[in-house]
Amino acid sequence: MSGWLRVAGLGPGDPALVTPEVAQALEQATDIVGYGPYVTRIAARPGRALHASDNRVECERAAHALALAAAGGRVVVVSSGDPGVFAMAAALFEALEAGPPDWCDLDIAILPGITAMLAASARLGAPLGHDFCAINLSCNLKPWDVLEHRLRMAARGDFAMAFYNPRSRARPDDFARVLAILRAECGPERLISFARDVSKPGEALRTVTLAEATPEMADMRTIVLLGNSQTRRVGRFVYSPRSVEAP
Amino acid sequence: MSGWLRVAGLGPGDPALVTPEVAQALEQATDIVGYGPYVTRIAARPGRALHASDNRVECERAAHALALAAAGGRVVVVSSGDPGVFAMAAALFEALEAGPPDWCDLDIAILPGITAMLAASARLGAPLGHDFCAINLSCNLKPWDVLEHRLRMAARGDFAMAFYNPRSRARPDDFARVLAILRAECGPERLISFARDVSKPGEALRTVTLAEATPEMADMRTIVLLGNSQTRRVGRFVYSPRSVEAP
Repeated sequence: MSGWLRVAGLGPGDPALVTPEVAQALEQATDIVGYGPYVTRIAARPGRALHASDNRVECERAAHALALAAAGGRVVVVSSGDPGVFAMAAALFEALEAGPPDWCDLDIAILPGITAMLAASARLGAPLGHDFCAINLSCNLKPWDVLEHRLRMAARGDFAMAFYNPRSRARPDDFARVLAILRAECGPERLISFARDVSKPGEALRTVTLAEATPEMADMRTIVLLGNSQTRRVGRFVYSPRSVEAP
Repeated sequence: MSGWLRVAGLGPGDPALVTPEVAQALEQATDIVGYGPYVTRIAARPGRALHASDNRVECERAAHALALAAAGGRVVVVSSGDPGVFAMAAALFEALEAGPPDWCDLDIAILPGITAMLAASARLGAPLGHDFCAINLSCNLKPWDVLEHRLRMAARGDFAMAFYNPRSRARPDDFARVLAILRAECGPERLISFARDVSKPGEALRTVTLAEATPEMADMRTIVLLGNSQTRRVGRFVYSPRSVEAP
């Protein structure tokens, strides 16, 4: 078999944030596989097939990509941000686990990218400047009780937090419940930042206190960053100091 | 003032992981400021001053960079990985907070990069494929009690974890204590991965159970990734499924 498969992170949107490693893989690919809006970021050309699929079919998409590579294709599965952070890498390994054993012999690699929370953090300053958690708020991925417990553990550990998929269309009220838990655990003065479409046209940043935060400040294109107990403003920036003083 | 300051993430080591945005900033810079080993990754040339400094002087280095930019320099502070993850961005804002008020009017931006945990995660598979924490184990940054509490909260929340600076030369025994806490909280079968010099010559990856893990598997050039309760192997890879099933 001469085929290979790469799961490549396209970063948050700006082509200047795509690594040369990913750009080279895209150049060499015979097949580009991914969620429609990501595939449309790749130019069509002879010898390069574009396979766009719907949202929420990650496992089928991954199995399709593996089958293409097994048939000799040079396949790039495109992912927003970094493939390993709430994106296509885990779906690929779920499909690998469920597929024919010889898929494990394929030439497979994950190519990292700039994930949304780090692009947002850079724009805001350094709100994730010390220990932090990344939490997916999508209600499709875990029971509410698991999510609520994780939020409380992260808050009690005084972690800064980055929230992906803060508002699902399916359950628009969940983010209000998340904010209520955070307010109860972290207090009303804790800083929270909303970063929408970072590095894309219309980028918008907003930092408020938890007392001021409302669910409408987030949508599915927003990444939400919560500070820790020491996170503060300096000039137009928000940052978390590098260290925690002894009490 | 026509000067500017960028804090740029150089990624884990491989030039193919440096974003075009960072490469362009380096091209335009009059001054490159940073920890010695990072500055030496930048070629010397006429019109570009290289300012290398020691480890553990991050705040002084940041203040120096701000002063150079205030004097009209086009200054890039180089950082390993992503500047916002246990690197130079937070130090920059600490220096900004402590410095003259007009430094806040400078043209300052943070340029994201590929942070070590995501480069390591990509090489290993997708061990951070669902909710996870990033924790700095350096004993210089917080009291031991704070670290121990954070480890326990993260474990009880069933987060995967990425550990930066797992072993300090100053206190080599701390990582053994960290492993003991993780074993007690997560059980002996939990997978833990050690990734040394990812994307650099001599890269080495190793995944074992917590029962098998020893402190000597890590040093200051190793990033350590702990799985969550569902993290498992498929072929030569390690991954965490995207979702948590209802009990």
